[in-house]
Amino acid sequence: MTQIYNFSAGPAVLPKEVLQQAASEMLDWHASGMSVMEMSHRGKEFISIASEAEADLRELMHIPANYKVLFLQGGAHAQFSMIPMNLLRGKDTADYLDTGIWAKKAIEEAARYCRVNVVASGAEQQYRQVPQQSQWKLNPDAAYVHYTSNETIGGLEMFWTPQVGSVPLVVDMSSHILSRPVDVTQYGLIYAGAQKNIGPAGLTIVIVREDLIGQTISGTPTMFDYKVHADNDSMYNTPPTYGIYMAGLVFKWLKARGGLAAIEKVNIEKSALLYDYIDSTDFYNSPIALENRSRMNIPFTIKDSALDTEFLKQAQAQGLLQLKGHRLLGGMRASIYNAMPLAGVQALVAFMQDFERVHG
Amino acid sequence: MTQIYNFSAGPAVLPKEVLQQAASEMLDWHASGMSVMEMSHRGKEFISIASEAEADLRELMHIPANYKVLFLQGGAHAQFSMIPMNLLRGKDTADYLDTGIWAKKAIEEAARYCRVNVVASGAEQQYRQVPQQSQWKLNPDAAYVHYTSNETIGGLEMFWTPQVGSVPLVVDMSSHILSRPVDVTQYGLIYAGAQKNIGPAGLTIVIVREDLIGQTISGTPTMFDYKVHADNDSMYNTPPTYGIYMAGLVFKWLKARGGLAAIEKVNIEKSALLYDYIDSTDFYNSPIALENRSRMNIPFTIKDSALDTEFLKQAQAQGLLQLKGHRLLGGMRASIYNAMPLAGVQALVAFMQDFERVHG
Repeated sequence: MTQIYNFSAGPAVLPKEVLQQAASEMLDWHASGMSVMEMSHRGKEFISIASEAEADLRELMHIPANYKVLFLQGGAHAQFSMIPMNLLRGKDTADYLDTGIWAKKAIEEAARYCRVNVVASGAEQQYRQVPQQSQWKLNPDAAYVHYTSNETIGGLEMFWTPQVGSVPLVVDMSSHILSRPVDVTQYGLIYAGAQKNIGPAGLTIVIVREDLIGQTISGTPTMFDYKVHADNDSMYNTPPTYGIYMAGLVFKWLKARGGLAAIEKVNIEKSALLYDYIDSTDFYNSPIALENRSRMNIPFTIKDSALDTEFLKQAQAQGLLQLKGHRLLGGMRASIYNAMPLAGVQALVAFMQDFERVHG
Repeated sequence: MTQIYNFSAGPAVLPKEVLQQAASEMLDWHASGMSVMEMSHRGKEFISIASEAEADLRELMHIPANYKVLFLQGGAHAQFSMIPMNLLRGKDTADYLDTGIWAKKAIEEAARYCRVNVVASGAEQQYRQVPQQSQWKLNPDAAYVHYTSNETIGGLEMFWTPQVGSVPLVVDMSSHILSRPVDVTQYGLIYAGAQKNIGPAGLTIVIVREDLIGQTISGTPTMFDYKVHADNDSMYNTPPTYGIYMAGLVFKWLKARGGLAAIEKVNIEKSALLYDYIDSTDFYNSPIALENRSRMNIPFTIKDSALDTEFLKQAQAQGLLQLKGHRLLGGMRASIYNAMPLAGVQALVAFMQDFERVHG
């Protein structure tokens, strides 16, 4: 079989070693006679899996003791409602930064629960650049400030942390969590769907400062109350047990590779390889401002967009999968999460060079 | 290794053939070069997996075309809020039958959104029997009638369908779905968490008559709107893709075994074997009324409850796992879902006989 490299934006490539371990343990986890999928979530076997996953995540991200780590369901879309429902805490307005498609989804849902103050928008720059903080119009009465630190579709990443004083900072880290160190203490709440850098779809991780939870707005479903999940160690209801197990394997894989500082070096190397090549030729183009180029999701175009279909067809034939850009933007997009090996990016660049040689 | 039989109430035993297939396909699904976990939910490979799973479920349950099949997240607990949020449709009251712990959870959550009329309660019978419909006090103005057709903890099952006229009937089938044929046309909405008879935890199946959806109460999170999921073929957000894949394998396994009428015969045989033995001796006891004895979850006690610990210890040593009763009820509970082979129940009964011989 051809060597496959999967550039999907999510669900996305997982470390091969992790999939191999999952396959080998599928029918019998640690001589328990059970698959992880068959274990009671309240049994000692699964409790040990969940506790170890949490401990490893805390170690990887240096999560302080006054932050709760929650394993939830529903992805970022559920968080878009849960955040205002839990964090308004008697206030009626929240600040949101508009960086593109995912930020706008968060804004639209929040607007159903409170007045949304858009502190700044990248719309005038066609979402190719994130507004500098000097241009933001923060509201000191905001319940919180929300932003999207990596736009999976647009391909923008913010490498700086907004400074918002005592107002809690809330961030959607879905598509770059675990790709580099972050200072958790700067945040009130960090959330991420698992299906990019953590594990399979259906698991959502929330890291929340414990003093912020416990006050929900009227009508909040019990399942949307962070405090309920925190008080029950994410076992208020049956959690997505297999997803937590897979996430735990990915955390161990990351630790074995040296943790987040080490993986960041690899991610810098991989993304630089692709951006440097794109910048070296007029045949391809990256639309994103230099300081906001995502290391995880790299959209690019071909000078003559009539070549897109042929590019994707040939790439697919060579085992370079899921390079088609998001339907809203067109063009191409290479998502190169932690689990994408350097060899995958090298293969992509080699293919792009060949394609340019023929069609350039 | 000892042959293991896993009597967990959920997450629970899965068919061995299904786990074997999942293991063998873990790194490469159908020569795609990808794990199912790595596939974009919008790619043709995963779309084919999800479509086939839905078609097989429709075939197994004879689901008419005017019912939507939704693959959601959040388990029964999320449904406890979603049902009133979606089905009140301008009314302010709903009917609920109280059959025990799970029914009460549904009632408590619904009471946050409407007036709950408890049509009848098994409390006076210590939840050992389901009240006959002649005793129910139905409210003709109710938005819907909700009941729990199998109480996983209490061990009660209802083998008849309530007749509620034109009021939509809503049922929590989490712990007996797919164990026997049901007439879907009698229901407005059927829901079930996957982690008993369908697949891994983290997937919830909702079957809903399409004319009932589209009117939510104010403040309903978009993720809790059935219509949004229906209009997007359960892909409004990233669904729990691996859970849907596993459910699809279980549906194929059921079809290969002859479907729901065939599996019902096996379930009758398995449960009768255990109940008949329990009834043949004074050493063990089933607390449940004959007509409501669940075929899926079988709680039982030992005459001298001081023997419980020894019973569980010896059972575990013989590979009979997770027989401890729910913490709220004590005693023992054997959950024998579709995937529990007859041999597992035979092994349990043989062990119970031995134990009685020594301690009786």
